[in-house]
Amino acid sequence: MIKETNFQYLTKLYQSYISEISWNQEPISLYEPFDYIMQQEGKKIRPLSLLLSYGLFSDNLTAALPAAYGLELFHNFTLIHDDIMDQAALRRGKPTVHQKYGDSSAILSGDAMLLESLQMILKAAGPRNAITQLFINSGLEVCRGQAMDMDFENSQSVRLPDYLQMIEKKTSVLLGCCLQIGAMLADQPEKICNTLYQIGLNLGNAFQIQDDIMDLYGDTTSFGKTRGGDLIQRKKTILLLTLLEDFDQKGQQEILAHYQKQRTPQEQLAFYEDILDRHDIKNKARHTFEDYCNRCYSEIKNLDLNEPGMQQLTQFVSLVLNRNY
Amino acid sequence: MIKETNFQYLTKLYQSYISEISWNQEPISLYEPFDYIMQQEGKKIRPLSLLLSYGLFSDNLTAALPAAYGLELFHNFTLIHDDIMDQAALRRGKPTVHQKYGDSSAILSGDAMLLESLQMILKAAGPRNAITQLFINSGLEVCRGQAMDMDFENSQSVRLPDYLQMIEKKTSVLLGCCLQIGAMLADQPEKICNTLYQIGLNLGNAFQIQDDIMDLYGDTTSFGKTRGGDLIQRKKTILLLTLLEDFDQKGQQEILAHYQKQRTPQEQLAFYEDILDRHDIKNKARHTFEDYCNRCYSEIKNLDLNEPGMQQLTQFVSLVLNRNY
Repeated sequence: MIKETNFQYLTKLYQSYISEISWNQEPISLYEPFDYIMQQEGKKIRPLSLLLSYGLFSDNLTAALPAAYGLELFHNFTLIHDDIMDQAALRRGKPTVHQKYGDSSAILSGDAMLLESLQMILKAAGPRNAITQLFINSGLEVCRGQAMDMDFENSQSVRLPDYLQMIEKKTSVLLGCCLQIGAMLADQPEKICNTLYQIGLNLGNAFQIQDDIMDLYGDTTSFGKTRGGDLIQRKKTILLLTLLEDFDQKGQQEILAHYQKQRTPQEQLAFYEDILDRHDIKNKARHTFEDYCNRCYSEIKNLDLNEPGMQQLTQFVSLVLNRNY
Repeated sequence: MIKETNFQYLTKLYQSYISEISWNQEPISLYEPFDYIMQQEGKKIRPLSLLLSYGLFSDNLTAALPAAYGLELFHNFTLIHDDIMDQAALRRGKPTVHQKYGDSSAILSGDAMLLESLQMILKAAGPRNAITQLFINSGLEVCRGQAMDMDFENSQSVRLPDYLQMIEKKTSVLLGCCLQIGAMLADQPEKICNTLYQIGLNLGNAFQIQDDIMDLYGDTTSFGKTRGGDLIQRKKTILLLTLLEDFDQKGQQEILAHYQKQRTPQEQLAFYEDILDRHDIKNKARHTFEDYCNRCYSEIKNLDLNEPGMQQLTQFVSLVLNRNY
């Protein structure tokens, strides 16, 4: 029999913890969306990364569960509000919260979910004030990243460094926050806490870049999305922005103007697949991805963990990034 | 020359503090709505009540300014999101945030404003954890009150006690929170802190009930709203719910069904003005109002303040409730 991995153990522990949580509270209209979204299948990367980080330094894992759940609540609050802004109808194959309960309920339940996530964080033992401060700062960075993402839609001046800054704020900061809070809860010194934050940033960036690459070059059947959906929706992903790097300012402006023009999805896809191929963009973007992966692994080495700890962290990174393309 | 009152002094101090604050931060799209709404004229009841409460026990008023501003930020976050839910076009005579910047920006800036309000609270000296806890609990109560308010629109089972519970959560809890935080920042014992919270609850309830009464019976020129606007919009205010108290269950259902029916604003107003008059509802609602006022004054007496402190608090209550009808 294959031995249960640490990650499987953490997953079981977390699942058992959340199976006890019910948001069957008044007013029903406020809390029903909590159960709806929190009970959906999901990768639970944020709570599990917090537990994993904490578990590197402490055995008393149950002490970290409320904070882990708080981070998952926060993440789901951002999903609810982002889905309203993006007018998304589906998430994880189910109607989004605003689709099911209406925009007003989705706004208000999201607000309450943010506040409830803070309640969970305030239950944390350890340096509570520093943890709360990190959590709120990270939350603000997520908002800033989302604002940048929305700004990019109508901007012709977005370039690769702006994009990298945006994904770091929108996606990676929260992963860094989870890993750092795990270490803080285990009363680790500042240097270790900060290194774990950096691991999260680099892993988050690598993850998001890979997601962009997969959109065009991934195995669509297992990934479950339309191939090239980002290109068809005129999103400014790593592929387009890496392409821009090959042009002077005038060329960049021409491409960005051309990108927005009306044409059929097939034409848009064919045109950009061709130009991306000719400029070897898949490989160039992959280099950026690998650069973040390498930074992530070298930060892991900086932690000077024992062998099992090292393995747990590298396994976690592989798990997050485990997609073939 | 008339001596400056304590309240005028606090107002000047607060105005001078906020005149130094600018939200000229990146991303502009996220923070521009902050300056837009925070620089509007408003009564600033929440920050001033916090400063007033703090000033009853301590002279070092500047120490309470960040928390006072944090409460005003929180209040404005709720206004931004409520205005989206209510599809309100104007607030304080100006376009609402979502009207000016779009729904997505209003949602996101509201989220960031909630988080920034927490940043301010975390700057507080004193029992920071207890203050943060109170703040978040109060924030959740405000969300619950807003959810109840939205539920009431489509409900035929709302009665007077539900309404009183709703306004307490939606409006009064935050005023109680402000007054209590003022006392907590000044390291006052629990009994005093709780009494100040109760003063806020009763004052908030009195204020909201008065607002409902004024909608029909107020001097519209000074109040700046359409007379009977609540009745015309089919809102379930204290007037309608006090009327229901005069009927048995069947009568209540008939009135509620009749209330929703389509007719011209003039017909709606005429019909309900007449039935409210016949049932002496203005006076009955006014009794409920006075009941809360009396509870508020008796809690003030419980504080055992010295004469000037007593005067400051009663002056503040008069100021909040100073509307002729």
